[in-house]
Amino acid sequence: MSVTAAQGFSAAGIAAGIKESGNPDLALVVNNGPRRAAAGVFTSNRVKAAPVLWSEQVLKGGEVTAVVLNSGGANACTGPQGFQDTHATAEKVAEVLEGHSAGEVAVASTGLIGILLPMDKLLPGIEQAVAALSEHGGEKAAIAIKTTDSVHKTAVAGGDGWTVGGMAKGAGMLAPGLATMLVVLTTDADVEAPALDAALRDATRTTFDRVDSDGCMSTNDTVLLLASGASGITPEQGAFAEAVRAVCDDLARQLIGDAEGASKDIRIEVINAATEDDAVEVGRSIARNNLLKCAIHGGDPNWGRVLSAIGTTKAAFEPDQLNVAINDVWVCKNGGVGEDRDLVDMRYREVKVTADLAAGTESAVIWANDLTADYVHENSAYSS
Amino acid sequence: MSVTAAQGFSAAGIAAGIKESGNPDLALVVNNGPRRAAAGVFTSNRVKAAPVLWSEQVLKGGEVTAVVLNSGGANACTGPQGFQDTHATAEKVAEVLEGHSAGEVAVASTGLIGILLPMDKLLPGIEQAVAALSEHGGEKAAIAIKTTDSVHKTAVAGGDGWTVGGMAKGAGMLAPGLATMLVVLTTDADVEAPALDAALRDATRTTFDRVDSDGCMSTNDTVLLLASGASGITPEQGAFAEAVRAVCDDLARQLIGDAEGASKDIRIEVINAATEDDAVEVGRSIARNNLLKCAIHGGDPNWGRVLSAIGTTKAAFEPDQLNVAINDVWVCKNGGVGEDRDLVDMRYREVKVTADLAAGTESAVIWANDLTADYVHENSAYSS
Repeated sequence: MSVTAAQGFSAAGIAAGIKESGNPDLALVVNNGPRRAAAGVFTSNRVKAAPVLWSEQVLKGGEVTAVVLNSGGANACTGPQGFQDTHATAEKVAEVLEGHSAGEVAVASTGLIGILLPMDKLLPGIEQAVAALSEHGGEKAAIAIKTTDSVHKTAVAGGDGWTVGGMAKGAGMLAPGLATMLVVLTTDADVEAPALDAALRDATRTTFDRVDSDGCMSTNDTVLLLASGASGITPEQGAFAEAVRAVCDDLARQLIGDAEGASKDIRIEVINAATEDDAVEVGRSIARNNLLKCAIHGGDPNWGRVLSAIGTTKAAFEPDQLNVAINDVWVCKNGGVGEDRDLVDMRYREVKVTADLAAGTESAVIWANDLTADYVHENSAYSS
Repeated sequence: MSVTAAQGFSAAGIAAGIKESGNPDLALVVNNGPRRAAAGVFTSNRVKAAPVLWSEQVLKGGEVTAVVLNSGGANACTGPQGFQDTHATAEKVAEVLEGHSAGEVAVASTGLIGILLPMDKLLPGIEQAVAALSEHGGEKAAIAIKTTDSVHKTAVAGGDGWTVGGMAKGAGMLAPGLATMLVVLTTDADVEAPALDAALRDATRTTFDRVDSDGCMSTNDTVLLLASGASGITPEQGAFAEAVRAVCDDLARQLIGDAEGASKDIRIEVINAATEDDAVEVGRSIARNNLLKCAIHGGDPNWGRVLSAIGTTKAAFEPDQLNVAINDVWVCKNGGVGEDRDLVDMRYREVKVTADLAAGTESAVIWANDLTADYVHENSAYSS
């Protein structure tokens, strides 16, 4: 499992003292080759953390030899000093690993915005992490990147003789509690950077990009895919892309399942849309409707709130042709009252909302969480 | 105060039995002339309640002789039967008032979506309301349109010899708990429909349209302005528009101050924007950021969440030139750490967030509320 499931990678997770709690807070993933191809996707937030700005540059070269990740501080909104700190972190990794170039070391950070990282702890921590590198270090790396995560998150998939593994932290692509989503995927498949990039973009578009726990977009979201080529096998692109997608989907579901304060995972499927963009727009609007999220928390199949959310979009539909099912009971038909809402069983953690736009043949699934008092408590006290 | 502050209007508020609680649930406002000019603005939600579809048609004629409003049911997503019920309601008002035409009777409803109104109670209630009409009935009308409102809401303004009065219900333009915003304004100024319309659109654009309690847009929002001409005075348009704006602003602030479960009113001012649209887009993005709303509830001046919200917009700005003040303390300067956040005093109900985009000279103010456990409780149990 995790980033060392694939051959050709070593990893470590250690406590550098960045977190006051003394919990693990520094992870290192090293690609031992022979190939060092890489692809990455990053937050679309225009306010980007220093490590995002750095790693975007690194990824342009298509090669990454190591990724260093810290929890305990996002290094976002930290100005020129923050960027210098990220640069110094990459330089330190390159120096201690020997034979590496800082320009091929990606950096990711997560934690509070607006606070400089304690470099006097982080830099010695890198020496400690390099000393701890192991081909079995994937779990420890996954643990070291946790912030408000209750569990560490890993996944694996693959084909005959090759593997895709990964780790993630966070509670949604769209950052609850500043719990930035960081993901590192590794593979021993022998795949060049452009093919990695294509597979990764395809995968994230329908997995991490369709997780919307609380509507809040992070400054630090980073998803990296590193290929070592150590298996010596170049899979057919479709099979490889599917494995990457499977790992992303697995990790995305784990993020939703561990979202801060959530008591329900909401699977929103929009069907019969005119276009996929329409389906995604409607799904997001439903996912972000606080009133619906509260109703689902209360076990209330309040379909009126689904319709009012659909009505705020520009998607193609006629109000009197909309149908809505909650847990497969079509409580709204033709824009009005449908089957008996008392038939809806909402006792389980997963709740399905199906919105039928009756306007075409496209569809999309968005995952969201309910809105709970626990979410409010956790996020009203995070930084104070 | 309320809709009978201006001359030429009578009103009533009675209990028709629509609400199971037995509380007042039916209001009637009648324009006794001599003029019957009117203007209206309605929800931009594409899923519109039957009374909205009806009243939009009525307002096209530019004349309204009476407005009938009910709480206890929104008559939204109720199909053809719901529209017939609205039509029958207007017909009944016209019939009982005598000499009125149903085509000049506006209808507004508020309450749960997806439930037909009990017409066997509503229609006899109209007879009761007509019998109770009084030139001092404005307060009772304001009380009868409450749903989850804790207080009824009225306001008044005016000039030499003329008056604008109004009543409102709801807890935000963007409907908390389906608490649709309904507003009726009246004036005895002698103003024709086009001038009423201009004044009303100007006023709502910068008042009700900039209240964003919980990001959820209603299916029923209705704001009407009726002119009786009973004062015989035609004010200068600027003075009249300012009075209408003042009443709208007063009522909008009352809506925010009474928002469900809220403990803070958040005044978000976006300054130095390139365009007013940019300022509004950024203000709304901040207003809808659940993480920031939680932080403010917890008394935490978490400016990182403001920046991450700004970063999701398309407005013109450079990340390293953004400045943010909370209660006038510039906690973020040039996109990084500014003044000491411990200087921010957040003990009071009103919290000011100022976002300086450093991109121009335009500005806008958006009002929002914090996100609290009480909001979750109230809205997870509303219909069950």
